[in-house]
Amino acid sequence: MKDARISLVTLGVADLERSAAFYEALGWERTSAGNESVVFLQGAGLVLSLFGLADLAADAGLAPEPLPRFRGLSLAVNLGDDAAIDRLFEAAVAAGAHPVKPPQRAFWGGYSGYFADPDGHLWELAHNPFFPMDERGHLDLVSPGSTGPEAAV
Amino acid sequence: MKDARISLVTLGVADLERSAAFYEALGWERTSAGNESVVFLQGAGLVLSLFGLADLAADAGLAPEPLPRFRGLSLAVNLGDDAAIDRLFEAAVAAGAHPVKPPQRAFWGGYSGYFADPDGHLWELAHNPFFPMDERGHLDLVSPGSTGPEAAV
Repeated sequence: MKDARISLVTLGVADLERSAAFYEALGWERTSAGNESVVFLQGAGLVLSLFGLADLAADAGLAPEPLPRFRGLSLAVNLGDDAAIDRLFEAAVAAGAHPVKPPQRAFWGGYSGYFADPDGHLWELAHNPFFPMDERGHLDLVSPGSTGPEAAV
Repeated sequence: MKDARISLVTLGVADLERSAAFYEALGWERTSAGNESVVFLQGAGLVLSLFGLADLAADAGLAPEPLPRFRGLSLAVNLGDDAAIDRLFEAAVAAGAHPVKPPQRAFWGGYSGYFADPDGHLWELAHNPFFPMDERGHLDLVSPGSTGPEAAV
């Protein structure tokens, strides 16, 4: 599964500096790799790239169209307990996120909320007590060493 | 930056089995953690979750609307050379992807292409010779140990 990875997620944004400040407030580390038209923020094992919305559409050769609120996918941050979810959700809203669904008990036994970033990109924050994470915070549902209560965070 | 992570990306899909087969063809490992309404596929350090499009909208409390071709973001797989990009792009198209932009030399000095998955989710495949990856294939632009030619793949 060596190709099964997401190295980088590129978000089309209206204002690079506004978005960079938003994600820095959530703990992403701005790197020196960007320039005036792109910002790269380092997270655990992957990079968040901020790029002009029209620039991204043009790069893919697609027409920029008005975007609906629901865009068919969500990016999820899984954390180790409910309190961490509440804390990050509050930080996101304080930094300019739109609170889509406040964190609450989920039908699948965890705790989850959704926010939209300043450009409407949808994020879920979730604590799933059944999902083991490794020491780096990476979600791993298959490695034998990552399962078991001692690996859950 | 401990909260700066993407643990899981949830894609809203029309047909769970069709999408599961598509991503398995690209190397994602289907796990036993799913059920009849959700499929979890393991990648390097994160999980791809397939969920009904309407289910995902409902979970976030958003209205499902017709989705444009360009949805404001892309998920990128970075690989170590141009040939790997060509190979994965061809595998994706063979598995049912829509070829949005065939891999080609990019203005920033790398090699990049875009495809849309069977539900229109936009992926970029890129070889960026300036981006170091660690031994697990994770993109890391800040750790001192990850930079330098010996770490580039």
